[in-house]
Amino acid sequence: MDDLYSRLLNGDRRAVARLITLVENGDPAARDPISHLHEHTGHAHIVGITGAPGAGKSTLVSALAKVLRARGLTIGIIAVDPTSPFTGGAILGDRIRMQDLATDPEVFIRSMGTRGSLGGISVATNDAVNILDAFGKDVVIVETVGAGQVEVDIVKLAHTSVVVAMPGAGDEIQAIKAGIMEIGDVFVVNKADRAEAGRTYTEILMMLEMSERSDGRMPALIRTVATTGEGVEELAQAIMDHHAYLEEEGLLEKKTKERIVSELLEIINRQVGRTVMRALQEDPEMIELMGKLMETREIDPHTGAAMVIRHLMKKGEG
Amino acid sequence: MDDLYSRLLNGDRRAVARLITLVENGDPAARDPISHLHEHTGHAHIVGITGAPGAGKSTLVSALAKVLRARGLTIGIIAVDPTSPFTGGAILGDRIRMQDLATDPEVFIRSMGTRGSLGGISVATNDAVNILDAFGKDVVIVETVGAGQVEVDIVKLAHTSVVVAMPGAGDEIQAIKAGIMEIGDVFVVNKADRAEAGRTYTEILMMLEMSERSDGRMPALIRTVATTGEGVEELAQAIMDHHAYLEEEGLLEKKTKERIVSELLEIINRQVGRTVMRALQEDPEMIELMGKLMETREIDPHTGAAMVIRHLMKKGEG
Repeated sequence: MDDLYSRLLNGDRRAVARLITLVENGDPAARDPISHLHEHTGHAHIVGITGAPGAGKSTLVSALAKVLRARGLTIGIIAVDPTSPFTGGAILGDRIRMQDLATDPEVFIRSMGTRGSLGGISVATNDAVNILDAFGKDVVIVETVGAGQVEVDIVKLAHTSVVVAMPGAGDEIQAIKAGIMEIGDVFVVNKADRAEAGRTYTEILMMLEMSERSDGRMPALIRTVATTGEGVEELAQAIMDHHAYLEEEGLLEKKTKERIVSELLEIINRQVGRTVMRALQEDPEMIELMGKLMETREIDPHTGAAMVIRHLMKKGEG
Repeated sequence: MDDLYSRLLNGDRRAVARLITLVENGDPAARDPISHLHEHTGHAHIVGITGAPGAGKSTLVSALAKVLRARGLTIGIIAVDPTSPFTGGAILGDRIRMQDLATDPEVFIRSMGTRGSLGGISVATNDAVNILDAFGKDVVIVETVGAGQVEVDIVKLAHTSVVVAMPGAGDEIQAIKAGIMEIGDVFVVNKADRAEAGRTYTEILMMLEMSERSDGRMPALIRTVATTGEGVEELAQAIMDHHAYLEEEGLLEKKTKERIVSELLEIINRQVGRTVMRALQEDPEMIELMGKLMETREIDPHTGAAMVIRHLMKKGEG
């Protein structure tokens, strides 16, 4: 494992792939290298990209990566698919589309699923971002394939969050609700060569102008056609501009802190979850509690949970 | 609040609505009534319904509820929308479609969103199910609008899980992957009057025949046209049959146990998350740890998380 750590720092891509696989599988063997690598993190600009299914995120990420490469930046891409059992179809195609990038040694692309464990995807994604950061990538792009809470949580933790919309029915626009308006630092209307693109652009612009953002900054709104590369230079620039803004305003530190607090919480929750599961299965006192919860229904789950926490803390003393 | 509890047990629907709102908002005022109500739970047959967006779940749930009502059963319906900021559009329409049921005093319908808190939706949904159970509903249907991990987690905990597919491209079928095959107790091909329905039915049937299920039981596969009611009697029967099967095989207790363990874990995780957040914000030792994590990067988040847990346990002693 020590070997994995030094190979990675020496630029061995296979060591990166191997370590991310360990992380994805929740393998404890990843702990040591991750721990050693940590002091080498903190350099990368983390960019989150999310948006409704079908908005063309993968093609856009691919085009964006090429533009950033042309600017001399090295790139890591993590495509997150938080296990929706329903979204299967498109993902393989998306990955194939990205393959022309895969021959560039300065681009590292990785898809991540989850092994079904609660909170597993967030912890694994954070670890993978840190690995690519330590590997020396200037920009780490986290693309979320789906469109649920997990994805939003992941993207929220990037330095710069990009929300991708596509021209379409009122539904589509209506669907970009207040929550996502607050999240995005850069908004994109992709497939901007379509007829409805102008209206979509105007609608998003109006929503952005009306929404009150906690940072008081008006997000950029960019038109792109990812398939032709149109507007992608402007998108790259908007992302760079946002990073410069964070630096100038001293906000990078705040973002980093939010990210670390979130990482800690995820890891702690997962750890606590595992400990509780073991206790419930093995500890006689806990098994008795379960009986009371189930059979006699004399204790409700909230009271039961408080009892489990107290019991584990008492046990922690011993 | 005591009043809320007794009003609810006396059949006051407004008390139910009020208590679910408290639960949804994570209001501590809900704790006491929930705790008192718990001994009245354990009667309802909990049915989870999930499936890809556009499969017609809401219309199907509405039709199913009517059939179950005709059989003399009282119904609770919880429609979960786990905050996808992207799915907004259809939901209002779905709810309106259900409104012809809302005039029946023996049917209680409620949509639930989340207030963005991690794990909040699962805890609130479980509480709402327990409330409707204590309220005396014979069948509580939990419909998940989206299609992510959260929804699957919720549906998995029902006594009977129904997976709804619709006829369509190979994509759609391909997308019903192994994970969901293992979850469903009853499968439905809705919109069965469409041309491709026969092929979809055959494909799902083949997948069901090939997949190995831990319970060894072949799930039912039903064709429905929710808009006309076609096949909905058969669906209701398949759901009832599954419940009878659980009872005969002594599996209801196992399901209930899984449900309670999951409820406990969710509540504990949420509780621990809150405690840690407070500690990180207020505790000098924790603030120092955060500094080490952030500025010097001498500690990685996994090691940091272990330190936080140890620190909280030590504090718990005092």
